[in-house]
Amino acid sequence: MNYQVFDTTLRDGGQREGISYTVADKLAVARLLDEFGVGFIEGGWPGAMPKDTEFFERAKTELDLKNAVLVAFGATRKAGVDVASDAQVKALIDAGTPVVCVVAKSDIRHVERALRTTGDENLNMVRDTVRHLVASGKRAFVDCEHFFDGFRHDPSYTASVVKAAFEAGAERVVMCDTNGGMLPSMITEAIASVTQKTGISADKLGIHCQNDTACAVANTIAAVEAGVEHFQCTANGYGERPGNADLFAVVSNLQLKLGLKVLPDGCLEKATRISSALAEIANIAPDTHQAYVGAAAFAHKAGLHASAIKVDPLLYNHVDPSVVGNDMRILVTEMAGRASIELKSRELGLDLAGHPDTLTTVTRKVKDLEATGWSFEAADASFELLVRSELPGADLIRPFNLESYRVLVEHREDGTVISEATVKVRVRGERVIATAEGNGPVNALDEALRSALQNHYPQLKTFELTDFKVRILEGSHGTNAVTRVLLETGERGRDWTTVGVHENIVEASWTALVDSLTYGLALTSTKAL
Amino acid sequence: MNYQVFDTTLRDGGQREGISYTVADKLAVARLLDEFGVGFIEGGWPGAMPKDTEFFERAKTELDLKNAVLVAFGATRKAGVDVASDAQVKALIDAGTPVVCVVAKSDIRHVERALRTTGDENLNMVRDTVRHLVASGKRAFVDCEHFFDGFRHDPSYTASVVKAAFEAGAERVVMCDTNGGMLPSMITEAIASVTQKTGISADKLGIHCQNDTACAVANTIAAVEAGVEHFQCTANGYGERPGNADLFAVVSNLQLKLGLKVLPDGCLEKATRISSALAEIANIAPDTHQAYVGAAAFAHKAGLHASAIKVDPLLYNHVDPSVVGNDMRILVTEMAGRASIELKSRELGLDLAGHPDTLTTVTRKVKDLEATGWSFEAADASFELLVRSELPGADLIRPFNLESYRVLVEHREDGTVISEATVKVRVRGERVIATAEGNGPVNALDEALRSALQNHYPQLKTFELTDFKVRILEGSHGTNAVTRVLLETGERGRDWTTVGVHENIVEASWTALVDSLTYGLALTSTKAL
Repeated sequence: MNYQVFDTTLRDGGQREGISYTVADKLAVARLLDEFGVGFIEGGWPGAMPKDTEFFERAKTELDLKNAVLVAFGATRKAGVDVASDAQVKALIDAGTPVVCVVAKSDIRHVERALRTTGDENLNMVRDTVRHLVASGKRAFVDCEHFFDGFRHDPSYTASVVKAAFEAGAERVVMCDTNGGMLPSMITEAIASVTQKTGISADKLGIHCQNDTACAVANTIAAVEAGVEHFQCTANGYGERPGNADLFAVVSNLQLKLGLKVLPDGCLEKATRISSALAEIANIAPDTHQAYVGAAAFAHKAGLHASAIKVDPLLYNHVDPSVVGNDMRILVTEMAGRASIELKSRELGLDLAGHPDTLTTVTRKVKDLEATGWSFEAADASFELLVRSELPGADLIRPFNLESYRVLVEHREDGTVISEATVKVRVRGERVIATAEGNGPVNALDEALRSALQNHYPQLKTFELTDFKVRILEGSHGTNAVTRVLLETGERGRDWTTVGVHENIVEASWTALVDSLTYGLALTSTKAL
Repeated sequence: MNYQVFDTTLRDGGQREGISYTVADKLAVARLLDEFGVGFIEGGWPGAMPKDTEFFERAKTELDLKNAVLVAFGATRKAGVDVASDAQVKALIDAGTPVVCVVAKSDIRHVERALRTTGDENLNMVRDTVRHLVASGKRAFVDCEHFFDGFRHDPSYTASVVKAAFEAGAERVVMCDTNGGMLPSMITEAIASVTQKTGISADKLGIHCQNDTACAVANTIAAVEAGVEHFQCTANGYGERPGNADLFAVVSNLQLKLGLKVLPDGCLEKATRISSALAEIANIAPDTHQAYVGAAAFAHKAGLHASAIKVDPLLYNHVDPSVVGNDMRILVTEMAGRASIELKSRELGLDLAGHPDTLTTVTRKVKDLEATGWSFEAADASFELLVRSELPGADLIRPFNLESYRVLVEHREDGTVISEATVKVRVRGERVIATAEGNGPVNALDEALRSALQNHYPQLKTFELTDFKVRILEGSHGTNAVTRVLLETGERGRDWTTVGVHENIVEASWTALVDSLTYGLALTSTKAL
């Protein structure tokens, strides 16, 4: 079996609402996909998208791919135009990729109504374009758009497009569920029928599924089970509407559930890291509930489970999280009983088994705080500070205490916007007042607090705020909304997350900021936690 | 065929990271699920969860269900305990529901390692509990936990649990893919094998799937195709880890793709509204990319498609969006050419066909703004203001102009936090200065601006800020982050969304606020847009 893992994150994935890749982004995405071990990277549509033309140009000198080959995507020649003089086809050849994938209409209704040409001319467009690409030394793949809808409506015409493509020298013909309306059983049935009707064996065909029935991953698996060896996915399932088949779920399922080898050795373990790096570049908040690679993919919160997990983790995980580079997590939540809190604390190196009273107090405090909008599920550092401050002979020394702060944001008549903050704190007995500006109220507060503390804690310089998340929580139905802020701080590879909740976003941010510096200083001074 | 649509949003769904239902929430969720037409609503675990005990108590007087019956969830009796004196089983009966669903271990490894008892005692626990429930006048359903893992490991033992449950009088035995590791083909195979092994027909069995392979919906469909008539889902797929099978996708697929009638007439059209209402109560941002019911489920952004959609919308939608109460949307994005902008404007009642120059300017402005972090995809009102301000003889009169504003947030020594804003604006030639306090900086600005404008625009009183979303956009890798604010304003049933982007969150909010009031005033004064 020679599986072709074909990634189209940079082409079809870019159609997801909210994604807009720069050329630099596209190069970075390509490197990560190559590192993950996909065989083909569809980079975009040269000629149609200026950004994509530039991407393929820069790729010639800036991309050094180990596992993948680049693919340029485009359309068959225009109706009534000589292929040699079709500018868009020329752009595909000029892109300089070893493989070109052209989309062809394979539903007669789309040929006639959208393309506004005849079925025969469409077949000529497919033949001419594929022949021309092959003659130019390209490996030619053909995406049959609306394949399944077309095959249901007029099997003979759709089959004739498939045959035309192969006759002209196409290496693969891809069945695209463009509108995403299929279910796995329908895919299985259609493939059996099309191979029987065309005499073409399934291993020459490819599959491309959209997620409109929430079955894109399952549909892709069904096609592979039916003998298809070429499948098109996008990282994290990015794509138009409900998206495409998620590369990470498809590959993990094929390797771990069906025992098929589709990636080079040592690649699957990179799934979790690469998935979040790609979310970062796409500038889309990672889906914590994503299968296999999500932060919550192996997270357990029910007290019921948590207690049993202490016995045998694998009883409660469908695979060992580490095979996809993920971890099992215990979530601190009101649904979790003492067992989860104890387990979580142990995860953080704090053994509460010997301190039943502390365990009780912490469990109660967590329940109370979560009732008012707090969440420690993503804020381990704040949780650890909470536990430590409750431990007998509390081992936590607060490095400073707040007296007051004041933040001013001004939009002046000349249009300039300034933010200025003043903090008054007590550090080791000394009272310090500091003022600073920032590009926003929170940044100004951060700057002011750091300048107030820097003489006593020079190591603060090495702390960097790496992420700042804001969530407005509907006040429980009618009452005022509260704001929850998550702050991620990094220092030489390590990072920690803290949380703050308040109806005032500035105060919520301040709380998270104070926890962040307190935790960081405890880390680097009193002891390595 | 007599399908049982069994919803467990209130029990299993509540285990999703971030969900914490109050009893009032639970009652509201139950009413919405009943309105959607599910047959069974699993309300929680009385006895184990105080909230759930209270829910069932209040349900007796406060819930008047039209389509659904309530189900209490619990466990079989404890090992070595007489069922009649098992407090947890008693709580199940006291819950007063017509149906009780008990979870039973059906994987011998879980029986021995987690439950720490023998296979035989576990079988007795199932028999005793089911008999006791039936004797108490309950319809008894049995969830076989880890069914598929158990059946693979030791088919005979798992089969013996199923038989024991039916012999004791269970109405349904549910095969639970508790760890979520299955694929559709495995489900099909397992069901064939278990029915053959036990002689029990598939229509007596139920299915409960978790989404750990991203196949929960497909797995559920596969089970129904194999003859199962009872399926357990959660609204929006809420649940632990990657979640459960999404009720809306499962039901839509069964009705629209397989032509099975699983809901009462007129219910499916409520899917989109009820899905977002349930997200609201769960306090989870709706998944815009959710199949069928997501805001982007039928949203088209590619210029390519947008132009063809003008010809025939159904060519590009797998179903008519209205059958699930959704709409087709055209997204305004840089990938969309003039076609999308023109289509979107027409959607808003602005015909740009006659104004090619305006169309060009607007398209360019949208591209430029989106390059700096703006997004009009969710902000129709801001987009409309942008178009109107470009129309020849711009028909948009700005109701006021800002001179300057100042916002102060202070955390005082006594711990109180105050927010105060002063705005200076020009309204119809008059210069107005107003100051107000608020529970946060944006609220204070809103109050100050309204008080400055109220004499000239009394109708402002009727505008209500209904939602406020904040998204921190990683500055393009290294540079400062920018903040995007989406503001939703409502007035008597109508609502509109505006957007603001700036590195300073207060300024970004201000921009969205000004658009919001400008749009609202234009709506109510100059003309009905």
